[in-house]
Amino acid sequence: MTPMRHAVILAGGSGTRLWPASRRARPKQFLALGGAASLLAATARRVRSAAPAVLIVTAADQAEAARAEVPAAEIVPEPAARNTAAALGLAATHLVARDPDAVLGAFPADQHVGDEAGFGAVVERAFAAAERGDVIVTIGLRPTRAETGFGWLELGGARGELGAPVRDVARFVEKPDLARATAFAASGYHLWNGGMFFVRARRLLDELARHLPATAAGLATIERALVAGDHAAAAVATAAVYPGLPTVSIDHGVMERAADVVAVPGDFGWSDVGSWAAVAELLPRDAAGNARTGDAVIVDGADNLALTDAGVIALVGVSGLAVIRAGDAVLVLPTARAQEVRAAVEALTAAGLSRYL
Amino acid sequence: MTPMRHAVILAGGSGTRLWPASRRARPKQFLALGGAASLLAATARRVRSAAPAVLIVTAADQAEAARAEVPAAEIVPEPAARNTAAALGLAATHLVARDPDAVLGAFPADQHVGDEAGFGAVVERAFAAAERGDVIVTIGLRPTRAETGFGWLELGGARGELGAPVRDVARFVEKPDLARATAFAASGYHLWNGGMFFVRARRLLDELARHLPATAAGLATIERALVAGDHAAAAVATAAVYPGLPTVSIDHGVMERAADVVAVPGDFGWSDVGSWAAVAELLPRDAAGNARTGDAVIVDGADNLALTDAGVIALVGVSGLAVIRAGDAVLVLPTARAQEVRAAVEALTAAGLSRYL
Repeated sequence: MTPMRHAVILAGGSGTRLWPASRRARPKQFLALGGAASLLAATARRVRSAAPAVLIVTAADQAEAARAEVPAAEIVPEPAARNTAAALGLAATHLVARDPDAVLGAFPADQHVGDEAGFGAVVERAFAAAERGDVIVTIGLRPTRAETGFGWLELGGARGELGAPVRDVARFVEKPDLARATAFAASGYHLWNGGMFFVRARRLLDELARHLPATAAGLATIERALVAGDHAAAAVATAAVYPGLPTVSIDHGVMERAADVVAVPGDFGWSDVGSWAAVAELLPRDAAGNARTGDAVIVDGADNLALTDAGVIALVGVSGLAVIRAGDAVLVLPTARAQEVRAAVEALTAAGLSRYL
Repeated sequence: MTPMRHAVILAGGSGTRLWPASRRARPKQFLALGGAASLLAATARRVRSAAPAVLIVTAADQAEAARAEVPAAEIVPEPAARNTAAALGLAATHLVARDPDAVLGAFPADQHVGDEAGFGAVVERAFAAAERGDVIVTIGLRPTRAETGFGWLELGGARGELGAPVRDVARFVEKPDLARATAFAASGYHLWNGGMFFVRARRLLDELARHLPATAAGLATIERALVAGDHAAAAVATAAVYPGLPTVSIDHGVMERAADVVAVPGDFGWSDVGSWAAVAELLPRDAAGNARTGDAVIVDGADNLALTDAGVIALVGVSGLAVIRAGDAVLVLPTARAQEVRAAVEALTAAGLSRYL
């Protein structure tokens, strides 16, 4: 019998790269960016065809919002943010407690996919590979630019026994410099790490025990309560041990160190929606290259991004700007400097205006 | 006995040069720009020392707002906007009906004055000149730049009998080209026309009869009702005749054609507050030349104007921009192109978004 597939959606993000749309109380995964539904709801809908059981790991204070977005999902709240190794470990712990053979696919909650059918086919291959072999499967996105802000995978030899396109991952390279990124983008055997992983839940916990033993020990306490069927005790254990777990990403804590990591190449209009420049790429543009949502007029300007969630934006004689109005805040910066939103966030904090974050 | 002085404040403006702060329903004179009070309230306070009786001519639908700003003033509502010749004629008609010797000083409601004591002294000289001679007195502002958007006065001979600094106005020049404006700014005998006039009310009506007979005939109908003490009839007459009066400015309709126009020079930090660039001149600036009102942070940017009436504005890596958030609208344009706000207004109208005007 094929073990049951579970989609784990990691919705713990609290990033400010899309401020002012993204706020502490309403992070990016709750925003509709490049679509009608929130990124979280779109992710849940997208993964459901491959794995009908959806589990969302999210911050405790966002559990209700997540439930509203994805009513059919199981929500596992995190008492504190401890990055993706702990979050994915917590999900795996819940899954093995009820199904020792469970296979999980982990998906960040805040990505965009243009080609949903293509995505579904790749996810099917990735789940199948994780079921055939005792391996960790990741999806490598075909690069479209020499991106220095992403992690990259270097492909190794073919693993045809796991499915035609599957190959070993020779190594992970986090945020290469521009020269390396340029070489990677041209090599043909370097792909972007999309942060999606497919693995038997028990194997993931074994990897945590090997590479992050403190994480694994804490999770084992929670697992004992869950296996005993004592959900109150499990909640108490989670509240007690989770905040003490190491704060480390699954990439850095496990994937970069684990043996038998393989990749399925994918090319399905993927975006991490990681900056206003990335949002601009998802939107239709007029003949002058201007993209907009909401009411906006642009006179004598090109290549602007004008987004507003209320009211109107009017631009005259400016080009290459991102002008974002969201809630009580307006951000203006060159789209080419979209990474510098953090400078605005830092300036607001320094000015005693962190109530706007 | 000295005839009584009356300040007439012309508050009929409906300009869009300061959109989005200025709206159809709340034009510029109701805004606080460069000060704590609205321009209208500041004007009323400023003129009261020279002329305790204040009469405000304003659009009928703004009469209540004007009354709220200046409770002690008499409000004369205009049934329709017919520019300043009709508005000032209507004020003069009300004044002569109760005081045939009334002397009026007319002041636009939407100007800024930095040196109020200096302003008061010049206004005193202007009223005194209008009382001594049967002349029309205007205030000429010492130019600080070769402004092509203003009307200019060319001074003629001295009129010492009206007070030491008074001189004839040889002619009015409306909006000269840059070459002429540059010559004017350097000549020493060209001044900006500030749109302030001092004249016996009856003399003003006589000038209207000479140069704008249709205006004078209409006003005479209103005057007869007022002289009879029948305010209901006067209101009916105003509603009947005023909308049919010619739409012409007092400058073009009367001042440019009248004999015996004289000027008192003034230099009291005057601004017409006629654009966002002009507003920027009124505000304090930080070391990088940025001016702001409301919550704003500016990172790596110089010479910006960041104004918000609510929430926060964050600018990163932009310079020389005016970013204005007012009510439900955000405007972004280079301050050097501040005159092009009208292009935004036209684009909004063309896009069916005139609800934001």
